[in-house]
Amino acid sequence: MSQIEILRKKLDSGNIVEVGGAFDAMSAKIVETQKFDAVWAGSFAISATHALPDASIMTMTEFLNVAASMADACNIPVIADCDTGFGGPSNVSHTVKKYENAGVAAISIEDKIFPKQNSLLEGGTQVLLPEKEFVAKIIAAKEAKKNPDFIVIARTETLIANLGMNEAIKRAKAYEKAGADAILIHSKKNTPNEIFEFVDSWSGNIPIVIVPTSYPSVKLTDLKKHKINMVIYANQTLRASYTAMNKILKEIKNSENLENVNKQISSMEDIFELQKMYDLKNEEEMIKTNLKKMGYVN
Amino acid sequence: MSQIEILRKKLDSGNIVEVGGAFDAMSAKIVETQKFDAVWAGSFAISATHALPDASIMTMTEFLNVAASMADACNIPVIADCDTGFGGPSNVSHTVKKYENAGVAAISIEDKIFPKQNSLLEGGTQVLLPEKEFVAKIIAAKEAKKNPDFIVIARTETLIANLGMNEAIKRAKAYEKAGADAILIHSKKNTPNEIFEFVDSWSGNIPIVIVPTSYPSVKLTDLKKHKINMVIYANQTLRASYTAMNKILKEIKNSENLENVNKQISSMEDIFELQKMYDLKNEEEMIKTNLKKMGYVN
Amino acid sequence: MSQIEILRKKLDSGNIVEVGGAFDAMSAKIVETQKFDAVWAGSFAISATHALPDASIMTMTEFLNVAASMADACNIPVIADCDTGFGGPSNVSHTVKKYENAGVAAISIEDKIFPKQNSLLEGGTQVLLPEKEFVAKIIAAKEAKKNPDFIVIARTETLIANLGMNEAIKRAKAYEKAGADAILIHSKKNTPNEIFEFVDSWSGNIPIVIVPTSYPSVKLTDLKKHKINMVIYANQTLRASYTAMNKILKEIKNSENLENVNKQISSMEDIFELQKMYDLKNEEEMIKTNLKKMGYVN
Amino acid sequence: MSQIEILRKKLDSGNIVEVGGAFDAMSAKIVETQKFDAVWAGSFAISATHALPDASIMTMTEFLNVAASMADACNIPVIADCDTGFGGPSNVSHTVKKYENAGVAAISIEDKIFPKQNSLLEGGTQVLLPEKEFVAKIIAAKEAKKNPDFIVIARTETLIANLGMNEAIKRAKAYEKAGADAILIHSKKNTPNEIFEFVDSWSGNIPIVIVPTSYPSVKLTDLKKHKINMVIYANQTLRASYTAMNKILKEIKNSENLENVNKQISSMEDIFELQKMYDLKNEEEMIKTNLKKMGYVN
Repeated sequence: MSQIEILRKKLDSGNIVEVGGAFDAMSAKIVETQKFDAVWAGSFAISATHALPDASIMTMTEFLNVAASMADACNIPVIADCDTGFGGPSNVSHTVKKYENAGVAAISIEDKIFPKQNSLLEGGTQVLLPEKEFVAKIIAAKEAKKNPDFIVIARTETLIANLGMNEAIKRAKAYEKAGADAILIHSKKNTPNEIFEFVDSWSGNIPIVIVPTSYPSVKLTDLKKHKINMVIYANQTLRASYTAMNKILKEIKNSENLENVNKQISSMEDIFELQKMYDLKNEEEMIKTNLKKMGYVN
Repeated sequence: MSQIEILRKKLDSGNIVEVGGAFDAMSAKIVETQKFDAVWAGSFAISATHALPDASIMTMTEFLNVAASMADACNIPVIADCDTGFGGPSNVSHTVKKYENAGVAAISIEDKIFPKQNSLLEGGTQVLLPEKEFVAKIIAAKEAKKNPDFIVIARTETLIANLGMNEAIKRAKAYEKAGADAILIHSKKNTPNEIFEFVDSWSGNIPIVIVPTSYPSVKLTDLKKHKINMVIYANQTLRASYTAMNKILKEIKNSENLENVNKQISSMEDIFELQKMYDLKNEEEMIKTNLKKMGYVN
Repeated sequence: MSQIEILRKKLDSGNIVEVGGAFDAMSAKIVETQKFDAVWAGSFAISATHALPDASIMTMTEFLNVAASMADACNIPVIADCDTGFGGPSNVSHTVKKYENAGVAAISIEDKIFPKQNSLLEGGTQVLLPEKEFVAKIIAAKEAKKNPDFIVIARTETLIANLGMNEAIKRAKAYEKAGADAILIHSKKNTPNEIFEFVDSWSGNIPIVIVPTSYPSVKLTDLKKHKINMVIYANQTLRASYTAMNKILKEIKNSENLENVNKQISSMEDIFELQKMYDLKNEEEMIKTNLKKMGYVN
Repeated sequence: MSQIEILRKKLDSGNIVEVGGAFDAMSAKIVETQKFDAVWAGSFAISATHALPDASIMTMTEFLNVAASMADACNIPVIADCDTGFGGPSNVSHTVKKYENAGVAAISIEDKIFPKQNSLLEGGTQVLLPEKEFVAKIIAAKEAKKNPDFIVIARTETLIANLGMNEAIKRAKAYEKAGADAILIHSKKNTPNEIFEFVDSWSGNIPIVIVPTSYPSVKLTDLKKHKINMVIYANQTLRASYTAMNKILKEIKNSENLENVNKQISSMEDIFELQKMYDLKNEEEMIKTNLKKMGYVN
């Protein structure tokens, strides 16, 4: 079963799909190891690892390379955060083709203007695209996909832009009608009330996706109760990584040696395992066996 | 002062140069924040973040992109681990041109055959290139650099390949004579004795670099006592990151919500700071001020 | 003298700067061989060689790679067509840093909305950005450059969008005031009259650049007479290449062998020369000489 | 039918497969327009367009990007020249995965040492890998492919290295036994006699491929008579393009205007057609129709 089929099937199953955020193939692989259902290739986290602002500065080519590398490394599906779709409808169309070819299972596009700014940046500029123009992007995305199971998530930033619940519902319905496969409703509130209000008013047929970065206290059971279909823990891996690296480097700087540091970090062997160093040995063995059969080695 | 000049000056200063390992621009930036003198763009760590074996599988293009991204993000110099130089002397020559153009301050090339395997892999294959052939690569590197301050580190794997101290010293001298700017002597022993023996026998004029991954108990004061000029903490950030991400994802999976997790990880604002989100605001202000002066806004 | 300095000096000289269009490093190298002053890395031609529409579909990363490859291969300066600057002011700022780091001598940005369409496409959509917003991009570009000799060409599409001569002059003046180093005035008319009218009314101090694709009959002496400072022959190499390849492939298909075809095409040796195959031999000789001196070979 | 299936079917058909050389997506598209059966993504030509020597200087990443771009643009299959496979067996394995994922239909790998030099370079160094080591690479390639129809062409340089007909036949048989899907036999003689001698002695079951660059007088009917299954016209498009660009630029430099030049080159519209500018318009229409149905436009 391909990664695309796996994601489609999970979304159809009725269970909540738990998605872990990643920013490179190693973090994606760890998301898989920890038994999440899918990987979120988030543009905030990927921009951060490139030390570039989350503001449409990195190009589609750069984001695609990261997502493709994750899809190559993982068995679970990869969901790529494609911001505003990198331009207008023809850019969205090109984006869908490229990501689908790269083995990515889903993309998310959002209804902000290009270039965008991070949704949770205090004082950041949050301007929405007119509904019609974002609908045009969804139509372009829908037409561009070859595999009908490829998932286009329409993310609305209506609540982020303080435009009200009615507008959020109206837009979500329009996006479903235009062909979106799921709706991501984003919120910057520090409780899930706004999200629950949205979901409880939602009468559409496509799944609802949320990203509880700003309302961390929400419980998984509550998400299920409110019929939320997918939860994305978008950037905790990044922030854990940031904290751990600062700590370890500070200790290296302050301590006389690495012994204490070594107790807190993974072994080389853990990493060798993740990067499939031992598969190389198996390959060497396989080749040797074949060379023996062919009479090249004894 | 350019990053190349900074590194040359530090190496000439007589103080030990402390180098922190990184694998992307964010980890490089954290190395800088924690006051290390330089960043090591290690091929083991970079391969790991791409979930690919450390065995010359990733291409020069891919490694270069990472190192260039670090050099763009940092003020401290970047030292790039270039494995065997990606082929023969003409590949080394091309590599030097590309890395120097990208703003990298130094490269390290090692005297193993291409493709290589990680030096610390249990049971890994470690075959050295004949001395003459590696000398040819150093000559190629030396001739290719435009800025004489660009540093070519010749790394000998003689001790890794169990070829003895005499051979190690002989090769290091040959590499110096061929034009290397520094010698990296690598060891897989779990004490620094072998390294100290090397350094104490060393009568050359160029600096000695070490990577104490396998002998973590060595003290900085001992390194100084033995006149080691540079120490590279090559992959502790990677391994700290791996451990932290596994831990946090496990907690997310097991806990009912993100509240406990959030206490252990950096804030969004820390990341915004690192990725210069706030610089964008300054740029917006600067543009607004100029537009005011020109009469476009009031 | 760097490529940036060469271009600045030529522009300051008062002579008309003749620029040949290219789409990869080989065509750029041929432009140099044929004694043009600079290379135009045109987005129409580069998109065409990727078989993608000239409509902001290719990313900055992809265009940058081509321009960087040209700058590496050539001694004459490279002028990169950066369309609308790949987004808003912060994208322009990032673009300038990247291109300047890559050794490109100048970029051109135009005052159309992103994503754009080719200016000469019959029935294409040509919408201009408000003057204020394009001025903001020029300010961003000016502030982002490190070397003051790096040239930012502001290209106005006012005449392409049928907005009249007054508006064209008004915008050009505003762009100069904002910090542009040159003005590119584009026209889709089949005579140069419109361009001459613009230039004759121009009272600014910065150089004027033109691209006579649609008015091929204009003479170089007339350009000089009208004080035009730079002429870009943007895509004739591409179109010659297209025609020649179609012809040669048709002949191969129709003829019984390659003999007749071979008379019409360059020798392998011409290509070896261009790609510096013989430099490799010189490098090998240099290394051998050094190895001899060091006693490795007799 | 996928490009992989198309190529496999053509090779199985018994007709000779005619392959045109290309170096970017546009030249590949022209090969398709001129009714060739497949495209050859040749490393000599691709290196030349990057103004870099054909000597394993460009990386797999760079070659792959070009081949992927061709496969995206074309309906006919793309055969990628992968030189020596970019390293040892594990590099070959990685290469096969990457090229197959990118939609390429076949790769060719050759039995020279890495890094290699162009086979037709006067005085170039041509050293063969021991048979056993190249057999190991073929085994790696065969095991790495997911689609059994993906074609691995084993190219032997035995005749180029002057090692005799017996060795050539012996190696070709060994490569077939190891799992190659086709044999490319290369020759630098200026008549096809050597090739015919090889083919007439060949008793294997897999198809034979030739590249008549150095013996252009050979007739297609003779190739068929000698049961050659595929002929690759590797670099005539490149050389035609080189010649045409030099000519047109010289004329631009010498003539007073572009009028005479314009008669010799394609129109802008021809290029618009190739790069699918008009498809964008169709997409716009499709979106408009949908927006109308949804009530957004009248």
